[in-house]
Amino acid sequence: MTEPDATPTPDASFSRRGLLGLAAAGGIGAVAGLAAGAAIASAPDATGGTPASARYPFFGEHQAGITTPAQDRLHFAAFDLAPDATRDDLASLLADWTEAAARLTQGLEVGEAGAVGGSPYAPPDDTGEALGLPASGLTITFGFGPTLFGTADGVDRFRLAARRPAALEPLPRFSGDALVPERSGGDLCIQACADDPQVAVHAIRNLSRIAFGRAMLRWSQLGFGRTSSTSTSQTTPRNLFGFKDGTANIKAEEPDAVAEHVWVSREQGPEWLVGGSYLVARRIRMIIESWDRVQLAEQEALFGRTKGEGGPMSGGGEFAAIDLAATARDGSPVIARDAHVRLAHPETNGGIRLLRRGYNFVDGNDALGRLDAGLFFLSFQNDPEHFVTVQRSLASDGLNEYLKHVGSAVFAIPPGAHEGDSIGDTLLN
Amino acid sequence: MTEPDATPTPDASFSRRGLLGLAAAGGIGAVAGLAAGAAIASAPDATGGTPASARYPFFGEHQAGITTPAQDRLHFAAFDLAPDATRDDLASLLADWTEAAARLTQGLEVGEAGAVGGSPYAPPDDTGEALGLPASGLTITFGFGPTLFGTADGVDRFRLAARRPAALEPLPRFSGDALVPERSGGDLCIQACADDPQVAVHAIRNLSRIAFGRAMLRWSQLGFGRTSSTSTSQTTPRNLFGFKDGTANIKAEEPDAVAEHVWVSREQGPEWLVGGSYLVARRIRMIIESWDRVQLAEQEALFGRTKGEGGPMSGGGEFAAIDLAATARDGSPVIARDAHVRLAHPETNGGIRLLRRGYNFVDGNDALGRLDAGLFFLSFQNDPEHFVTVQRSLASDGLNEYLKHVGSAVFAIPPGAHEGDSIGDTLLN
Repeated sequence: MTEPDATPTPDASFSRRGLLGLAAAGGIGAVAGLAAGAAIASAPDATGGTPASARYPFFGEHQAGITTPAQDRLHFAAFDLAPDATRDDLASLLADWTEAAARLTQGLEVGEAGAVGGSPYAPPDDTGEALGLPASGLTITFGFGPTLFGTADGVDRFRLAARRPAALEPLPRFSGDALVPERSGGDLCIQACADDPQVAVHAIRNLSRIAFGRAMLRWSQLGFGRTSSTSTSQTTPRNLFGFKDGTANIKAEEPDAVAEHVWVSREQGPEWLVGGSYLVARRIRMIIESWDRVQLAEQEALFGRTKGEGGPMSGGGEFAAIDLAATARDGSPVIARDAHVRLAHPETNGGIRLLRRGYNFVDGNDALGRLDAGLFFLSFQNDPEHFVTVQRSLASDGLNEYLKHVGSAVFAIPPGAHEGDSIGDTLLN
Repeated sequence: MTEPDATPTPDASFSRRGLLGLAAAGGIGAVAGLAAGAAIASAPDATGGTPASARYPFFGEHQAGITTPAQDRLHFAAFDLAPDATRDDLASLLADWTEAAARLTQGLEVGEAGAVGGSPYAPPDDTGEALGLPASGLTITFGFGPTLFGTADGVDRFRLAARRPAALEPLPRFSGDALVPERSGGDLCIQACADDPQVAVHAIRNLSRIAFGRAMLRWSQLGFGRTSSTSTSQTTPRNLFGFKDGTANIKAEEPDAVAEHVWVSREQGPEWLVGGSYLVARRIRMIIESWDRVQLAEQEALFGRTKGEGGPMSGGGEFAAIDLAATARDGSPVIARDAHVRLAHPETNGGIRLLRRGYNFVDGNDALGRLDAGLFFLSFQNDPEHFVTVQRSLASDGLNEYLKHVGSAVFAIPPGAHEGDSIGDTLLN
């Protein structure tokens, strides 16, 4: 598990700037020593937020950034390996990314010389815009897309075809898909979550830079507001329809549910992916201008929850169980047949639950003056088919009138690396 | 002045959610009464951040969002009036915007019925995604572009041509400009700054919605990280070149400098703009991939500051005065002739100082896999010519190799409105 240590250590003085001073006093070795030993994280504070100084261990059984309490901001990036990249290039890239991610998540700069050390006649190791900022709860999560295991011009690109998990297939086409290739797919992905967007952006920028010549950014997405809670310590945020939608999400405090739905088990396999997961990413444009003209009663019926408190239309507060069987006097269901909460509910989907970790986005506006806004949906599950089942169930979702899926990708999320190893070692070695 | 009240009132319980409860208990009148009386703001905390509950008065001599301590996040929007909009439409829009902005900045929803009140058979007044969030230091600042005072098809669009300030002209073309019309200009602008991006986005979205049929979003920009301080209580942040660049900015605590450089005086006029300002907005793409390959020593020479502490190359700490006359042993200037800090310095520009309020942005990536990243530059000054002077001086800036100006706009910023009046009353009445 990638939970923070139980001991809270709100440590605002532990920042990149502080370390610069330390490096000057004790030499570069002092920083390196601290980096290796640093796995201190503070517990979330009482309001469910995390103090800016929160640090989560990078190494562990599972990758961080999945059951970690969802941070406020996101920078997500998908990469393609260079056309001439070799298996050795892939291995060296993953080793370099691992080393950098282990430092960045501890609030350190990339490379021991950082942004202002080393030779003045060399480019700095680190780009510098996070100098002085604390770790801000940064987690960095790596994934492998189906194309990484594929062939190009008839050649097994990285000699991985035989190791492709059977479940790692491009997602099928869903009704209502309007996918844009430039916002879909990718050989590799990196999810960077942090409570400070500058820290998340700094991570993706530096990891992209490290990839230079070996892999290239294919698409990327910033998210400004989390739409799900992954811990009972967090309040439920709202999506851009103005509703709470993550109330029934899997929480880190439900270890049985996490084990059952999120982590790939030995029985599921393949062996190299045990303790890992699958990530589905969907860029869902919301037609908010049309939504904003919908009557409140219809908005609530379409969701199946009240807009204010977020309680189910079948009664009770936000966390009340949804009663899908409840009927009105006239015999009609209280939770409408096309209500979002009904179609997404585990009861409707054979018990399937997804761990959602999505973010709100706004990327300017279109030529008609409508905000290019929506939900960057992220879900972790131990079989992509679980997402497919739920998404097919949502085909009759009344909300679809106000949604357009424009980006889509699926990635296998390898297990965490142990210190001294690299992400992907279980696949490549 | 739009400073927060001196008395800190960290009031986390004052949120939209809290008010919903209040409304239920005391009726809608209770909310309205509170809205009218609410002008409570908390002082910035010790670290220069503002507590999430900070509230700044909307009404006052000057508009808020100029000398207000720069909040962490931005949503900026430029609008064009509808082709058939009349002067009455413009007046009613500004009145409606004023009413909404006065509520939003106090942590209230748009309209007394909010997102969950009123009739269930009507669309909610408010879109709802900020329900439960505090005011988060939100400020909303309105501006008027040159085209608002112009003619269309030979007709004086809003009978304002005679009231156009002589200084309000489209900016001249600068060397290196690569402007995109879709990211430039606009009849009106709204700058929404807050410490929570969801609150800033909520403001622009609801104000756009209110404009429906009268004005349409022309372009918009999110900024995730402030690059300037506008108060001595704030630490200097870093831009995406990894440098501190706002050290010598005008601060609210320098009332003489603010009066001299920011607010339009009676002598400058026109009368309707006294107590207002001019806003210049520039979307400056940074070619960060090239910048990241530049040697540290050259980066520092190009800026004229050290990268770590941000002290001038002429010596001293971050806040040391820059010695433009300092020479090295060989007689060459210590601050290079093409260094950014030299060319932007008041000494080089006849004493001109701009109040900068820019933000870092990342908007995905281009087809070459480069992040579409940079600086959304915002500056307030009492004459746009001041910006022109500095920008012309920067024509030989060594940084230009790594910059591309893709968006540009200038707006007259009317003075603040007094309670009961609307923004723009001094212009229209």
